[in-house]
Amino acid sequence: MAVRSDPSVGSSGRPSSDDAPRSDVSQRSAHDVVCIGNALVDVLAEASDHQLGELGLIKGTMVLVDGARSASIFETMGSTVEASGGSAANTAAGIAALGGRAAFLGRVADDSFGRSFLHDIRSIGVTFDPTPTTAVPGETVTGHCLVLVTEDAERTMATHLGVASEFGTADLHRGHLISAEVAYLEGYLWEQDAAKAAMREAIEIAHRDGASVALSLSDPFCVEHHRSEFLELIHNDLELVFANEDEITLLFGTAGFDEAVEAVAETGVLAALTRGDKGCVVVTPSGPVEVPAEPVDRVVDTTGAGDLFAAGFLFGMTHGLGPSDAARLGGVCAAEIISHVGARPLADLRALAIGVGLLD
Amino acid sequence: MAVRSDPSVGSSGRPSSDDAPRSDVSQRSAHDVVCIGNALVDVLAEASDHQLGELGLIKGTMVLVDGARSASIFETMGSTVEASGGSAANTAAGIAALGGRAAFLGRVADDSFGRSFLHDIRSIGVTFDPTPTTAVPGETVTGHCLVLVTEDAERTMATHLGVASEFGTADLHRGHLISAEVAYLEGYLWEQDAAKAAMREAIEIAHRDGASVALSLSDPFCVEHHRSEFLELIHNDLELVFANEDEITLLFGTAGFDEAVEAVAETGVLAALTRGDKGCVVVTPSGPVEVPAEPVDRVVDTTGAGDLFAAGFLFGMTHGLGPSDAARLGGVCAAEIISHVGARPLADLRALAIGVGLLD
Repeated sequence: MAVRSDPSVGSSGRPSSDDAPRSDVSQRSAHDVVCIGNALVDVLAEASDHQLGELGLIKGTMVLVDGARSASIFETMGSTVEASGGSAANTAAGIAALGGRAAFLGRVADDSFGRSFLHDIRSIGVTFDPTPTTAVPGETVTGHCLVLVTEDAERTMATHLGVASEFGTADLHRGHLISAEVAYLEGYLWEQDAAKAAMREAIEIAHRDGASVALSLSDPFCVEHHRSEFLELIHNDLELVFANEDEITLLFGTAGFDEAVEAVAETGVLAALTRGDKGCVVVTPSGPVEVPAEPVDRVVDTTGAGDLFAAGFLFGMTHGLGPSDAARLGGVCAAEIISHVGARPLADLRALAIGVGLLD
Repeated sequence: MAVRSDPSVGSSGRPSSDDAPRSDVSQRSAHDVVCIGNALVDVLAEASDHQLGELGLIKGTMVLVDGARSASIFETMGSTVEASGGSAANTAAGIAALGGRAAFLGRVADDSFGRSFLHDIRSIGVTFDPTPTTAVPGETVTGHCLVLVTEDAERTMATHLGVASEFGTADLHRGHLISAEVAYLEGYLWEQDAAKAAMREAIEIAHRDGASVALSLSDPFCVEHHRSEFLELIHNDLELVFANEDEITLLFGTAGFDEAVEAVAETGVLAALTRGDKGCVVVTPSGPVEVPAEPVDRVVDTTGAGDLFAAGFLFGMTHGLGPSDAARLGGVCAAEIISHVGARPLADLRALAIGVGLLD
């Protein structure tokens, strides 16, 4: 597995029960990455800064809301478009769109959102075999995320988790979990106690099978809520961490981004730190590497930018690219997703990657 | 009402029970246009020509399907995006987006598609007070249209009408119907006997109140199925007709488009005939006028092009523009809708119209 075993990339030196190198193609797992997260359908509409203020929402962040609050925010929204979303699910879709083998673990109800989510993720080629949920009409709904897109293309989100809030160890499909080279977890899951416990188990299963574990810090709010746990994970359990500038600075409580990069470097974890149109910094064992952002004609909707960056990076790292090229591939995927409404790729990501010489 | 009473536009000389000119602002009706049609949610996905062939669908057309066939087509579709649609409903949304006063008559079920449709059309400012449908769980669904968008941006549609198939005289909200200057009917409704009877009644009510009646021919298939009825309507009942090149040529059975224009002119009806990127021809009492198409950077999805052309044209005709400028406004609206996925406007249509000097 390139993230951990390829010496050219550098090993983080984490303990593993499986010392055999996994880079040999003949030994490759059934999935490159298993992504674990909240299964959500995005409900997108244009919004104004004024509207965000009236609703008490903070631009660029995600907030969890109950059904009633979700309904009252929905009331204020303009014409909507619905499309499958969910952070880790978007990443799985991106990996599949690049030609990678991804599985997804999450929880959906048997309603129209759930059927749509299931259809969409499978149709792009992701393996998803959810644990059936008990159907209590009107009481269990598939999670949905109200996405308010402002004129500056920034997205502000209010998520009603629905059945996703019940995600737990019962949803850890062991067959898929032990089949992957990397287990990718979204930080949003730490907001739920049952999911948090399940993630501890997922990390253990992944490591037992010699897989690497990657975590996305997801949102500054998640970092504020779970700072000590995330720090402990980085020091003890993770091979790879994804964060944006705000999240990583908040996590290490540093004065600025450069100091945060130094702090990450000291932990020895491989880190992909995104900075919007300033590109990203990959912290590798041989030092930090800056990678510029891919140019975009017109930024329409930044929903999914981080998720698709992770998709490109994870695909690259599990397909022989070094961290810089993997980050460039992440940038190509993020550039595609922010050029249109919605968080799932519309263009042929593989063709785009071939076009810029990253894949052949 | 400009379509019929403004002498600069030319009256078609149709009988009216109300001889008072309606162009005086103080006498303006509550709605500029009442649009009647199937309430549908579009389920859009990219598709290949090969896939259309396998499914036996004819590119660029709409076909009505039952629930089972809809489900089997859906199975073959890639990642989907859901957004409110419906031909006449798209037109109503476009009129509202231009700042006009539009009402919509249609039939939705109390399910997630229905709630989404209701939310979207009201949020853009269209009046829609549907007659409640009897809720039989699992049996009555809001109509939905599977839209397969090929690489050439052409859309091919398979519609499962659901409760829209029960549209009838019970759904003719008289308050809205007599409040409008123009009643705009979609030709698709002629596929259903109950709706067809309701349209006869709607035409009578509209004319009794002195309103004009406009019909969109909707689809070459509709023209094939209802040719004699559409011809009879044009000769006796309509003030305005919308059609594309294929539809109008098929209707009059002429060798080509120019002959069809001559045939329309002889009927005395005002006609807006669209020709894709060749623009349109408006047949007025003083002869046909050619109006070029609005340039578009990149055509992404032609779903709703005709509907939004009708929106601009109807808004123009009810707001003092002559037929040429109304057609130009139609072109501006169509250009916006084909530059993105979905059939409801994303950009501020009014601002676009002001930008090209058509409104102030």
